[in-house]
Amino acid sequence: MPVHVLHYLHEGRAQWGVVADGAITPIPGEFKSTAEFIEANSAEQLLYLDGQKIAESDVQWLSPVTADQQFICQGANYRQHMIESGLDPDVKKFNMIFTKASSCIVAADSRLVKPKEVQFLDYEIELGLVLKRNVTSRQTVTDDNLHDFVAGIVIVNDYSARDIQIPQMQFYKGKSYRTFGPVGPYLCLLQQQDITKLKELKLTLTVNGAVRQSDSTAGLVYGPAETLTELSGVHDLYAGDLLATGTPSGCALIVPSPEKQRAAAQLPEAEKWRMFLKMQSERPQYLSMGDVVEARIASPDGSIDLGVQRNLVVAEAA
Amino acid sequence: MPVHVLHYLHEGRAQWGVVADGAITPIPGEFKSTAEFIEANSAEQLLYLDGQKIAESDVQWLSPVTADQQFICQGANYRQHMIESGLDPDVKKFNMIFTKASSCIVAADSRLVKPKEVQFLDYEIELGLVLKRNVTSRQTVTDDNLHDFVAGIVIVNDYSARDIQIPQMQFYKGKSYRTFGPVGPYLCLLQQQDITKLKELKLTLTVNGAVRQSDSTAGLVYGPAETLTELSGVHDLYAGDLLATGTPSGCALIVPSPEKQRAAAQLPEAEKWRMFLKMQSERPQYLSMGDVVEARIASPDGSIDLGVQRNLVVAEAA
Repeated sequence: MPVHVLHYLHEGRAQWGVVADGAITPIPGEFKSTAEFIEANSAEQLLYLDGQKIAESDVQWLSPVTADQQFICQGANYRQHMIESGLDPDVKKFNMIFTKASSCIVAADSRLVKPKEVQFLDYEIELGLVLKRNVTSRQTVTDDNLHDFVAGIVIVNDYSARDIQIPQMQFYKGKSYRTFGPVGPYLCLLQQQDITKLKELKLTLTVNGAVRQSDSTAGLVYGPAETLTELSGVHDLYAGDLLATGTPSGCALIVPSPEKQRAAAQLPEAEKWRMFLKMQSERPQYLSMGDVVEARIASPDGSIDLGVQRNLVVAEAA
Repeated sequence: MPVHVLHYLHEGRAQWGVVADGAITPIPGEFKSTAEFIEANSAEQLLYLDGQKIAESDVQWLSPVTADQQFICQGANYRQHMIESGLDPDVKKFNMIFTKASSCIVAADSRLVKPKEVQFLDYEIELGLVLKRNVTSRQTVTDDNLHDFVAGIVIVNDYSARDIQIPQMQFYKGKSYRTFGPVGPYLCLLQQQDITKLKELKLTLTVNGAVRQSDSTAGLVYGPAETLTELSGVHDLYAGDLLATGTPSGCALIVPSPEKQRAAAQLPEAEKWRMFLKMQSERPQYLSMGDVVEARIASPDGSIDLGVQRNLVVAEAA
């Protein structure tokens, strides 16, 4: 059975606890990083945790992934999203990997700060995998041994400054601004028999209550096992690291059709990007000050419910 | 005056020392990370360090930047390199930022492992800045206060798998393979009056003794001060973090002319990349097993000499 964990601040102290029905059972011990927490705890151990409960409403959420972990991301990884971007999900050319600066990680109810130089601020709900152990050499990860590599899952919002990310080609800067990576609220630790549910999670993102993104992880193109297999052959991964698995369709970003992109490739660079930005400026879906973004991920049977992320968009302080 | 520091293994213990003329004066104290070392030591303090010396030949080099630091990189940042890539360095459109996985950091004399799936393995000599303090909010960094932000400098080789990096668009994966980031050997700590020398360092890279890259940091397009100003407005930086400032011309990679790129944009994706890879296959400059890459950075007056990186290219173990 999955176990839902909260990282929180209570009476001035950062703690971890099992959460159910609005009540938290504190987990004994001090764990300064997600790595330390994951290495000391598992769903199996925490399933029957007992102790005096505290109300969830009495604590302040912290991100269940601490900012000292790697924040690795997949791009263009949902079938419908690829189709809308003019790509064919059945022609798997490559698994697009990039990173966000870990210092953008914040709690799930944090305010989203729109940087003063950013015009086109976009949302991206994503399922985040939290890794179980260090991986320092090539591994073959399959659906059968995935449980040895993935400790649990979280909601991630991969907020993106499209006017930085897209014209500057490398995604890192436009996706790394402070507050651009809310994680949580809950880290759902999985047991081996829960792993199949990773393929049927429902993702929903709303802006001011209106649904913008709604899809299932059934639409993932590069799944967790093949992604971890490939990454293990490139670089080291550590317990507690975060792998955000890409976002479904429904973002504010509008990608020109392949035909339009081919035509635009003939233009001078400056003109091409002027047209791109003009296209974006006609999209009212981009976030504005005062907007409230909510993100939810859960399994259809309700046994996994990663909670609700809620971010109010605010201006950068002068 | 600049002070040259070595991170090394001696009698089974990782230590730091001031190095001059092949002799090391050990620095008292244990510093597990570059952050810890930088926060406890400065050029001013170490200038008159005394103590019993050991021979440099008796120690094993370690990277002066530890693998728990951020590894941030600039792209397309030398005038001549941009001109050869069909870009105009005087039209500064944006400062390209990406990252390498920190686990690719290795000592300066490490073997370079060519991953089995990689065909086009390339070198990139770069000046690396090692940061002096944590930066958690927007800062205005200028040539006058740069010394408050940069503790010292190192040689970095940003080894790159071009057949992964370029067709997959996001540079991260193709640049993050294990052993793709030798750093050192020396970390040169700078005093305030040394900072102007950052603009006149000579970079030289050879393969099997033949010069491939030779340029001066005078050719940098986005300098350290403006780059740190911009990055400070995006995400947090920490003492000991590494900023690799881009590579001069002379890599094996050949970039099609803007005219050819415009023509290629009309082709189906698969055909476009087939042509790109064919172009690369005609470049004998790509690294092969047994090649030896050497990288040197020094000031014309010899007061800064970051040592010699030497990497033998080997095959990945089966």
